[in-house]
Amino acid sequence: MDLFDAICLRHSYRGPMETTPVPREDLDRIVGAGIRAPSGKNAQTTEFIIIDDNSLLQELQALHPANKAMQQAPAMIACIIDKTPEKIYEGYDFQLEDCAAATENMLLAITALGYASVWIDGWLRVGNRADKVAALLHLPDDKKVQILLPVGTPKEQWEQKERQPFSTRVTYNRYS
Amino acid sequence: MDLFDAICLRHSYRGPMETTPVPREDLDRIVGAGIRAPSGKNAQTTEFIIIDDNSLLQELQALHPANKAMQQAPAMIACIIDKTPEKIYEGYDFQLEDCAAATENMLLAITALGYASVWIDGWLRVGNRADKVAALLHLPDDKKVQILLPVGTPKEQWEQKERQPFSTRVTYNRYS
Repeated sequence: MDLFDAICLRHSYRGPMETTPVPREDLDRIVGAGIRAPSGKNAQTTEFIIIDDNSLLQELQALHPANKAMQQAPAMIACIIDKTPEKIYEGYDFQLEDCAAATENMLLAITALGYASVWIDGWLRVGNRADKVAALLHLPDDKKVQILLPVGTPKEQWEQKERQPFSTRVTYNRYS
Repeated sequence: MDLFDAICLRHSYRGPMETTPVPREDLDRIVGAGIRAPSGKNAQTTEFIIIDDNSLLQELQALHPANKAMQQAPAMIACIIDKTPEKIYEGYDFQLEDCAAATENMLLAITALGYASVWIDGWLRVGNRADKVAALLHLPDDKKVQILLPVGTPKEQWEQKERQPFSTRVTYNRYS
């Protein structure tokens, strides 16, 4: 799929999904796209857990009854970063940005391969949910789940939400 | 350009650039790709300043003598977020992740259109450089430059840096 088409078609999908499994070949290709995202000082900090085991999926699905995509997805991808990232440049780390860039690459790859997903992040931060997911995935104590992506074939046709007009977010040469 | 080709060809380019200007049509298309990135609660928090004024470019270029792409780029894109982001979900904000996702879309668009760039971020955090850039762009006090992207036609052929092997960053179903 053309890059600009993928960027326009990508959307946050929270609807029902087909039960058809996502082949591991496709999951590897999606995460392979994530791996190729840039990272601060090329530190490649994000790690990925691909979840396609049915009993594990059921335990994860039970945590989010409001989100049909997460309830019904035949696969998920968890993005893992350090709880206390090492400062790798003048007192700064870039793990959150690294992880976000990798996630955007994966969302575009998911779109191009005909699947749908939604960036689950804030939801993990509340009610110790990230810790519950971490326990299910056997994460060591120093790692956390930053982002979770359900992946599957959407049953409904959704579109990207409307954007504010270009001119309200973009200026030339000076802020206004 | 095919999405997966763009993902594989994108790289951090710090080399010399042609002086040929980047047409505003292309700059708008690149930033249009950034605008279409997802954002937490669809808050669309990142703002963009496209810099193609020669005298302003010269002032920015003088700040970074080590980076040829930034020294010679005929255009730049600054990504602007709030210094103190409003907490929009259960005490959390997502401006850094929003900005990173928009940047990744723009880097892919830059690649697909035949230009090159590099994600400048940590460099801005040191020696009050972000403040100096903010002053040149007339940013209000509550906004900051998070990321700067030089944009131009590369004079040299570079490639994406090697990645760690897939199996060192990816597992199925459990961390290991």
